[in-house]
Amino acid sequence: MIDPTRRVMLTGSAAATAMVAAEFAAPAARAAAPPIGKQAPGFYRYKVGTAEVTVLTDGARWFPLTESYVVSAPIGEVRKALEAAYLPPDRMIHHYAPIVVNIGSKVVLIDTGNGPGAFAQTKGELGQLPANLKVAGIDPSDVDLVVISHFHADHVNGLLDANNKLAFANAEVLVPAAEWKFWMDDGEMSRASKGRMEDLFKNNRRVFDALGRKVTPYEWKKELAPGLMPLATVGHCIGHTSFMLSSGSASLYIQSDVTNHPDLFARHPDWAASFDQDPVQAVATRRMVYDMLVSDRLLVQGFHYPFPGLAHVEKAEGGYRVVPMPWNPTI
Amino acid sequence: MIDPTRRVMLTGSAAATAMVAAEFAAPAARAAAPPIGKQAPGFYRYKVGTAEVTVLTDGARWFPLTESYVVSAPIGEVRKALEAAYLPPDRMIHHYAPIVVNIGSKVVLIDTGNGPGAFAQTKGELGQLPANLKVAGIDPSDVDLVVISHFHADHVNGLLDANNKLAFANAEVLVPAAEWKFWMDDGEMSRASKGRMEDLFKNNRRVFDALGRKVTPYEWKKELAPGLMPLATVGHCIGHTSFMLSSGSASLYIQSDVTNHPDLFARHPDWAASFDQDPVQAVATRRMVYDMLVSDRLLVQGFHYPFPGLAHVEKAEGGYRVVPMPWNPTI
Repeated sequence: MIDPTRRVMLTGSAAATAMVAAEFAAPAARAAAPPIGKQAPGFYRYKVGTAEVTVLTDGARWFPLTESYVVSAPIGEVRKALEAAYLPPDRMIHHYAPIVVNIGSKVVLIDTGNGPGAFAQTKGELGQLPANLKVAGIDPSDVDLVVISHFHADHVNGLLDANNKLAFANAEVLVPAAEWKFWMDDGEMSRASKGRMEDLFKNNRRVFDALGRKVTPYEWKKELAPGLMPLATVGHCIGHTSFMLSSGSASLYIQSDVTNHPDLFARHPDWAASFDQDPVQAVATRRMVYDMLVSDRLLVQGFHYPFPGLAHVEKAEGGYRVVPMPWNPTI
Repeated sequence: MIDPTRRVMLTGSAAATAMVAAEFAAPAARAAAPPIGKQAPGFYRYKVGTAEVTVLTDGARWFPLTESYVVSAPIGEVRKALEAAYLPPDRMIHHYAPIVVNIGSKVVLIDTGNGPGAFAQTKGELGQLPANLKVAGIDPSDVDLVVISHFHADHVNGLLDANNKLAFANAEVLVPAAEWKFWMDDGEMSRASKGRMEDLFKNNRRVFDALGRKVTPYEWKKELAPGLMPLATVGHCIGHTSFMLSSGSASLYIQSDVTNHPDLFARHPDWAASFDQDPVQAVATRRMVYDMLVSDRLLVQGFHYPFPGLAHVEKAEGGYRVVPMPWNPTI
């Protein structure tokens, strides 16, 4: 088809020579199509045994790198690590990737992203989960269980929609008992340091009060659904939880926030981030989990790994290297 | 919303207790949503200066690993390399990723994938380019230039649509002059060895005869479009071509088939594949290009890298490690 707005059109009977000329001239006469400027939808699907996992990016966001971002390394070392990973040395990026696991009997969402407030504030850089669920063909009302790994805002804020209602109308909300106890305790809240910790307490009350505190606290090492086992990986939070998904002979370790960006915190596992609640414990947990991932050659899904966040881990000088799994264009 | 087909519905006035019971029973009473079984569309977008690059997977396909696949290493070594990359040791996968570059004045497609015949034969595992162009919002008729890197079937077959017509109605087709000369030469064809080489000659005539041999041969080191420079990287084919895309201070090295799967041929650059026409030259080219990618810290786009195929290269024991760039959920 020739688009008359983009091609020189010649009509009439006397234009045979001109037609030939126009044919050769045509490419120059066309205006180029404009750039599109829109990224692909951020979801990715794979199987773990008979379970179907859909990774959904909630977005990613750059921010200036500060002295306090890594508490246990000088900023010069952090800059070097970023440059070694082909990242800019003066700023940092956080990636976010909740997952949906369809285990046959249940559709389970693990963590909920930054929520509608962040979507508005960041003009869509964060809070992409609902849009990506839609293009992935997953209706929020099909989610049976929402499982929260820990009570940081980027994991719980997506529980609510823009009207402050549960964004997953038919879902039961499962939360780590240890997190629930800590963040909902008035005494703990009264002792929270000003700033980030106090803000987190307030945010958790905002979110869970909007749900009428209607949640089901869960204990570690008791299955949440067939094949989905919550595991204590504390340090990042007092009740921080990872998960082992098992189906037939296949397994997936869902690490939650055992590391944030792997180029910093897997390559340098002894570095603690300013948002690790107990930095010493966070480092010990990280080394324990990553040693297990290496020795068992386990597949790992990382909430803060770059999308799609499915990888293996191997030892590298001083720490670990996260090796992304190749993208599978079919499923 | 409660879907009456999936939720226990109770009506009538005498059911207060039953309502409460039903509320708690409701999750069990719902049938789980079925798995979706469909992968995300395979396109990915990024900028190189002001140029907009869209990577489009044409698919990927597994096949049994044979003794002859790597001509210069015993199959046991190849199996070890696959296992080291967390891949199965008894089979091999080829990934394919053409790209569209919108340089403002021109929309350029570089290589065309496996084409409609392969799509039919593989039930959609290959030949995904047209479908992915569509979801990426790129109309084939918007392509101004199709640039071919070399004359292997996975690069030229997508030039034709299912009706054996040019699949990009408004495009000029640019081909490496050295490839055109070699594959269209009747003398060369008459001397081709039976099997793969003879089949390639026949396939190239099938494709280019369908186009009335209406192509524009290009020379190396003469820009094809503003900022798009073809570079000789021979060995894989007699006229194998890579490209440097430059826009402002940004650059991208488009390697075409300097390596096939990076876990084999970048990690082990001295290995030649059975489909390297001149294995010794292919190895020399590979080392030359990869040493440059390392020393210049160049971004590289690989046709046979796993999607989306955008990476940096660093030295690793005995060869090179290809480090995928993190996925950017916005653009």
